[in-house]
Amino acid sequence: MKRREFLSGAAVAGAGAAASTLATPAIAQDMRELKMVTTWPKNFPGLGTSAERLAQRITAMSGGRLTVKVFAAGELVPPFEAFDAVSSGTADMYHGAEYYWQGKSKAFNFFAAVPFGLTATEMSSWIHHAGGQALWDELSSGFNIKPMMVANTGVQMGGWFNKEINSLEDYKGLKIRMPGLGGEVLRRIGAAAVSLPGGEIFPALQSGAIDATEWVGPWNDLAFGFYKVAKFYYYPGFHEPGTTLSGGVNLDVWNGLSSEDKAIIEAAATAENDYSLAEFNARNGDALDTLVNEHGVELRKFSDEVMTAIGGAAGEVVAEVAAEDPMTQKVYDSFLDFRTKAMGWARIADQAYWNARELPYEYTKG
Amino acid sequence: MKRREFLSGAAVAGAGAAASTLATPAIAQDMRELKMVTTWPKNFPGLGTSAERLAQRITAMSGGRLTVKVFAAGELVPPFEAFDAVSSGTADMYHGAEYYWQGKSKAFNFFAAVPFGLTATEMSSWIHHAGGQALWDELSSGFNIKPMMVANTGVQMGGWFNKEINSLEDYKGLKIRMPGLGGEVLRRIGAAAVSLPGGEIFPALQSGAIDATEWVGPWNDLAFGFYKVAKFYYYPGFHEPGTTLSGGVNLDVWNGLSSEDKAIIEAAATAENDYSLAEFNARNGDALDTLVNEHGVELRKFSDEVMTAIGGAAGEVVAEVAAEDPMTQKVYDSFLDFRTKAMGWARIADQAYWNARELPYEYTKG
Repeated sequence: MKRREFLSGAAVAGAGAAASTLATPAIAQDMRELKMVTTWPKNFPGLGTSAERLAQRITAMSGGRLTVKVFAAGELVPPFEAFDAVSSGTADMYHGAEYYWQGKSKAFNFFAAVPFGLTATEMSSWIHHAGGQALWDELSSGFNIKPMMVANTGVQMGGWFNKEINSLEDYKGLKIRMPGLGGEVLRRIGAAAVSLPGGEIFPALQSGAIDATEWVGPWNDLAFGFYKVAKFYYYPGFHEPGTTLSGGVNLDVWNGLSSEDKAIIEAAATAENDYSLAEFNARNGDALDTLVNEHGVELRKFSDEVMTAIGGAAGEVVAEVAAEDPMTQKVYDSFLDFRTKAMGWARIADQAYWNARELPYEYTKG
Repeated sequence: MKRREFLSGAAVAGAGAAASTLATPAIAQDMRELKMVTTWPKNFPGLGTSAERLAQRITAMSGGRLTVKVFAAGELVPPFEAFDAVSSGTADMYHGAEYYWQGKSKAFNFFAAVPFGLTATEMSSWIHHAGGQALWDELSSGFNIKPMMVANTGVQMGGWFNKEINSLEDYKGLKIRMPGLGGEVLRRIGAAAVSLPGGEIFPALQSGAIDATEWVGPWNDLAFGFYKVAKFYYYPGFHEPGTTLSGGVNLDVWNGLSSEDKAIIEAAATAENDYSLAEFNARNGDALDTLVNEHGVELRKFSDEVMTAIGGAAGEVVAEVAAEDPMTQKVYDSFLDFRTKAMGWARIADQAYWNARELPYEYTKG
């Protein structure tokens, strides 16, 4: 834990003051640059681009008083060192996903995605209105960071498979690229889950070194070209049902901001959370169309037998993670309580509506 | 169409200028008050409170340069005159729901909710990423208004019934309070749908003057006390599957704002859209629990037979609305195209995931 004082950005105020004869707001403020490090390649669709938009929103809303400079993965620090860079003050904020910091505390997983966990809208409800943010603040403040939701990928896909999965038996020994808790879940049901960096997945799938892989969803997966080397595209993505991306601001920097600038950063983050989820859903819908109708990809749904077994393994894995330390247990308890309520509501709201909307009636007339 | 120039709010800039010796931003701006008229009673849960939060966000982010003063329904103008008030410049902005203005153009319905239409997250996708905003801008600019999404109730409930609905036959002659297009849909399947102002619903249901009513969802319905006079609470709410609330700014006022202030208002609106949906979902989950477990309300799901018939009637009603004028048809065409894509994506994403999450596995262990 490093809590040394850090004030970033040059104080360039004063440059325009002499020339200005216009009225000033009650409290004029220094201009400053905030360095944002990210875990994404430059302009990576949906993730890197959302980080750029977040930066632009903050700069636009503050009239340039806050200028956010975005560093892609590796430009200032390696991607997975973004957290330490912000914690120590080398950078002012990060844009990433909390499960990347699970080496610090397993509790971080719950603020990104856990298998059979919460969807995007449920994450927003838990974080903003059911105690999630307070727990997250408590967890991250121990690392000198103020955390917030900044984007969401929505439900991810189950992955690309070069053979059909018809029963649990088909998972036995299956070489599948699935990192993190999802991978652990699949190991429980007999799969040989492995971790591979993004760039190595395509050749591994092509050569048969792996039989299957997950990535994100149709938008990102289409760009990666997985349809060229795997025929079956499975759903739903149990392992990441609504991956929250997060922004973290160095706590000393955060505490030094005016209430105006805090309000701007928080609103920019929450706005981008809505805007990016909407973008993923829209682009995923388009890309799915392209994959199926132009590239002949075969969509397959995991059977209830498979999903029931995976659900049970997911419950075990997530509960075991929770037991690692008291803070993680506290986060898990809150998550689990909210999950039960959210399921009760989804069952009669979105889920029931979406199921009804699929009934065999004719909607287009006139 | 009234496009007369209007600049609201007193120009109070300058008051603090003499005393200030601090640096100024490059362009200092006048302080101004924006009058926001709403269609909601003061602090009406979820709707009036969201309007207040939107105002506070704008004021906070602008450091008080923009002060938004909220007027509840009737305080400055009657609720359904909010649109005209903003159009003419009597007020600077409104907070309401677009279907209230369907007397101006039936196209407005599509920017609030239509039966068997889009959910909250789908509305965000259509508006922000699939052409919806451009059509909405085109429609509203004809009335001198810049429109935007500012909140969403999520999926509403099917309503309160004092008898069970087991088949289509049970809808014949049923006296149900359901205004707007939803009411027209129910008339097509034989119900006697009526419109009643909020305050008259409870006594009408209590006296038996009506057999059923819809309102919003568990959070608002619990506060209204409908559980005291009706036993069965039906789902899902086909008529409003994700009601978008909207803000409209007088177009002359909007065009006169700096890019900084426009960015602030747009981000505040989009942030509140996310935050309010999250609030409705969280509070609805809690309230549902209270209704069922403390008040003994019996939840009932509309049968597939009933929902299929309603779906067909909804398709007819919405298509007929579209045919009323070329602009409405244009909006409908875009809506319908997006609806098809959204269904394709929901089917393998949220919907498939939520259905899988309901399978009979054990999640809580440890």
